[in-house]
Amino acid sequence: MSRLSGFPEWLPAQRAVEQRVIDLLRETFELHGFAGLETRAVEPVEQLLRKGEIDKEVYAVRRLHADDDAADSLALHFDLTVPFARYVVENANDLEFPFRRYQIQKVWRGERPQQGRFREFTQADIDVVARDVLPFHFDVEVARVMAEALSRLPVPRLRLQVSNRKVLEGFYRGLGVAEPTAVMQAVDKLDKLPQDAVRSLLLQAGLDERQADACLALSAISTSDSSFAEQVTALGVEHELLAEGLAELVRVIDGCAGIEGVDVVVDLRIARGLDYYTGTVFETRMAGYEHLGSVCSGGRYDELARDNRNTYPGVGISLGVSRILSPLFADGLVADRSVPSVVLVAVHDEAERAASDALATALRSRGIATEVAPAAQRLGKQIRHAERRGIPYVLFPGDAVQVKDLRTGDQVDVDPTTWTPAPDDLRAGIVRPTPAPPEETTP
Amino acid sequence: MSRLSGFPEWLPAQRAVEQRVIDLLRETFELHGFAGLETRAVEPVEQLLRKGEIDKEVYAVRRLHADDDAADSLALHFDLTVPFARYVVENANDLEFPFRRYQIQKVWRGERPQQGRFREFTQADIDVVARDVLPFHFDVEVARVMAEALSRLPVPRLRLQVSNRKVLEGFYRGLGVAEPTAVMQAVDKLDKLPQDAVRSLLLQAGLDERQADACLALSAISTSDSSFAEQVTALGVEHELLAEGLAELVRVIDGCAGIEGVDVVVDLRIARGLDYYTGTVFETRMAGYEHLGSVCSGGRYDELARDNRNTYPGVGISLGVSRILSPLFADGLVADRSVPSVVLVAVHDEAERAASDALATALRSRGIATEVAPAAQRLGKQIRHAERRGIPYVLFPGDAVQVKDLRTGDQVDVDPTTWTPAPDDLRAGIVRPTPAPPEETTP
Repeated sequence: MSRLSGFPEWLPAQRAVEQRVIDLLRETFELHGFAGLETRAVEPVEQLLRKGEIDKEVYAVRRLHADDDAADSLALHFDLTVPFARYVVENANDLEFPFRRYQIQKVWRGERPQQGRFREFTQADIDVVARDVLPFHFDVEVARVMAEALSRLPVPRLRLQVSNRKVLEGFYRGLGVAEPTAVMQAVDKLDKLPQDAVRSLLLQAGLDERQADACLALSAISTSDSSFAEQVTALGVEHELLAEGLAELVRVIDGCAGIEGVDVVVDLRIARGLDYYTGTVFETRMAGYEHLGSVCSGGRYDELARDNRNTYPGVGISLGVSRILSPLFADGLVADRSVPSVVLVAVHDEAERAASDALATALRSRGIATEVAPAAQRLGKQIRHAERRGIPYVLFPGDAVQVKDLRTGDQVDVDPTTWTPAPDDLRAGIVRPTPAPPEETTP
Repeated sequence: MSRLSGFPEWLPAQRAVEQRVIDLLRETFELHGFAGLETRAVEPVEQLLRKGEIDKEVYAVRRLHADDDAADSLALHFDLTVPFARYVVENANDLEFPFRRYQIQKVWRGERPQQGRFREFTQADIDVVARDVLPFHFDVEVARVMAEALSRLPVPRLRLQVSNRKVLEGFYRGLGVAEPTAVMQAVDKLDKLPQDAVRSLLLQAGLDERQADACLALSAISTSDSSFAEQVTALGVEHELLAEGLAELVRVIDGCAGIEGVDVVVDLRIARGLDYYTGTVFETRMAGYEHLGSVCSGGRYDELARDNRNTYPGVGISLGVSRILSPLFADGLVADRSVPSVVLVAVHDEAERAASDALATALRSRGIATEVAPAAQRLGKQIRHAERRGIPYVLFPGDAVQVKDLRTGDQVDVDPTTWTPAPDDLRAGIVRPTPAPPEETTP
């Protein structure tokens, strides 16, 4: 039996970390009033292919012995945005707008597997969608909510980079560039190409040297506060759209002030290649894992969906849960136990198993995850059974109940009706990998 | 745009109930030391078809523009047992046995959609698997853990019915029946056929009248304690396997004593048609929804999986989450709010939004899910915005901060740094449907 390339599966102590990450995301999203949602795994093929370009990545789904009716031609969704847009239109009459939702689900892409790229992976999306008009403060909210969520994750430091297509397009137009989209696509390559190569691309796109240099100067601006605006202004370009974009971007970066544990920065190199973003855009890098590219991206789209009567503008951001965790698992990120159990209750004799079960039931009634030894082996074996799973405590039944802390070796008499482990022991700890060596820049 | 038959999607207030159900299941399973696990959605087709019979139900998965190499012929899993068996063998060296796991995931079947039958649905499985030998007390544990989980669900009362294939087979052998499997398959139809019809089936299978009547007498035995054993003994049949099965079944029903909120009964009509069960078997009915058939089934299999060196016996039980919830949603089961928010903070003026945001941040820091009004409309509109979502409280910023409880209409001054909603308000309540009318028996 061989593993399927691109379809990762985690061991229990890895899955425990993934579950913790999902719990932290969900808790943050719900604190901000985002409703949890799931959509079906499949969409009609033609629905998925409307955006073009990605048709070869789609997994078609078909009953093995289907009649040859192409009518029910289905495919697995490749992101959570397309299904959400469809869901919003289908259920518009039953939803209250503006509608905040989070969605944490598997998605599938038929890509060639490589590090950090999977055929099946988990994404965590938040979006706010409105009917016809979505006030700008939701851009600030989405940035802040995801920044707060990222700040809580047990992973290397994350850097949420914010930009705004209006700033870029307005600046290019103010410079007299006729085709701002071509510039944006060239600038978007600064991650992969050296600056000189991008400059050549800009010249090929018809810019003169002054324009190309100005575009590169703009893309070099990055600040962790609103001081970027002065730097842009100092470049001497003026345009109404630029001014509007700068004001928006100032609101986002000011709105994200004061969140510890994550870096939120304005970075005018970020353009996001995708057409449908119209203002704010987001990307995210993980320290030491910059080769993964952006692990959490999104932005404002003035038309997430449309029906006969309305348009539905939205702003959202999508975190690649598997994309972050897979390389960290490879480097040793893991929970310090492979089971939820805090306590193993020993069994002295199979005839006395009921006494051990009763002790376990009492602990569970106080919220302490507990398992009972599988067999009345000698106690050394039972202790090793707990150790191999990372269970911190073994409880020995008897007239004088005792608890052994396997980390210190201390064994003491306890009252089983009141004894409680240290609060930090109630759930697994997370063992972080040692930091990766400094990143080599891939040219 | 039309919905896809058999692929249900829930509205936010329904999804909130499903999420609560999943949380309760997970909490119970983890309290008992079951590790959470997920397996990939796809398996090689030949892996899925090994068990035969179900080939036409399988959804094949294929890249839309795949090369014509049949090598990567994949299909969506139709249950969580087959993938788990494969996972155990693949990861046997990294797992600690006996291994307890729970798994809550979507599965897919290409069946014709009908009420309670879906093409995509969520299952929640628990299993304990060992290498070579799995002590019987795990049968008791799995029954008890699932019974405790079922007892906590916000659904009509559930009845966990336990039986044992050794009791049935031993009884039939003790009666002198040559083909106990044929009898088991006939008895298994008592749910769908009248007793007379089953009796005819038994006679057709070669039983004489005395044997047929004894089999039907056995199948009529159902008790909520171990008194079933005397009733079986009173039928006057003796066989070693029968005695072994009775002793096992007594341990299971005794082990489930004292769990409130669920009925656990021995029911000797339960046989489970599937070949691979070898001892304990489980089925579950939901009060008022008996037409759904069993909503939570499982049992002991002496060989869940096998590799070159070992066999892996297991015992497990699988709850049909979608199967339970879908008809309840149709009858009105729903959360009393469509968002997680407990509080809506009003906005008097867009220029003062920051003050509302700061109040919301303070509430969230104390674990109170909070959203801020989307626009500084007049307060009546903002209150209705909260009401439509089921949010119980509106907080008004100002020199004297006030809170309005929308259910009572009370509005009082509060200190926003200490005010906390009633504990029961911190998360959504669940509105249960009015009981269904008495069930009509489908012949």
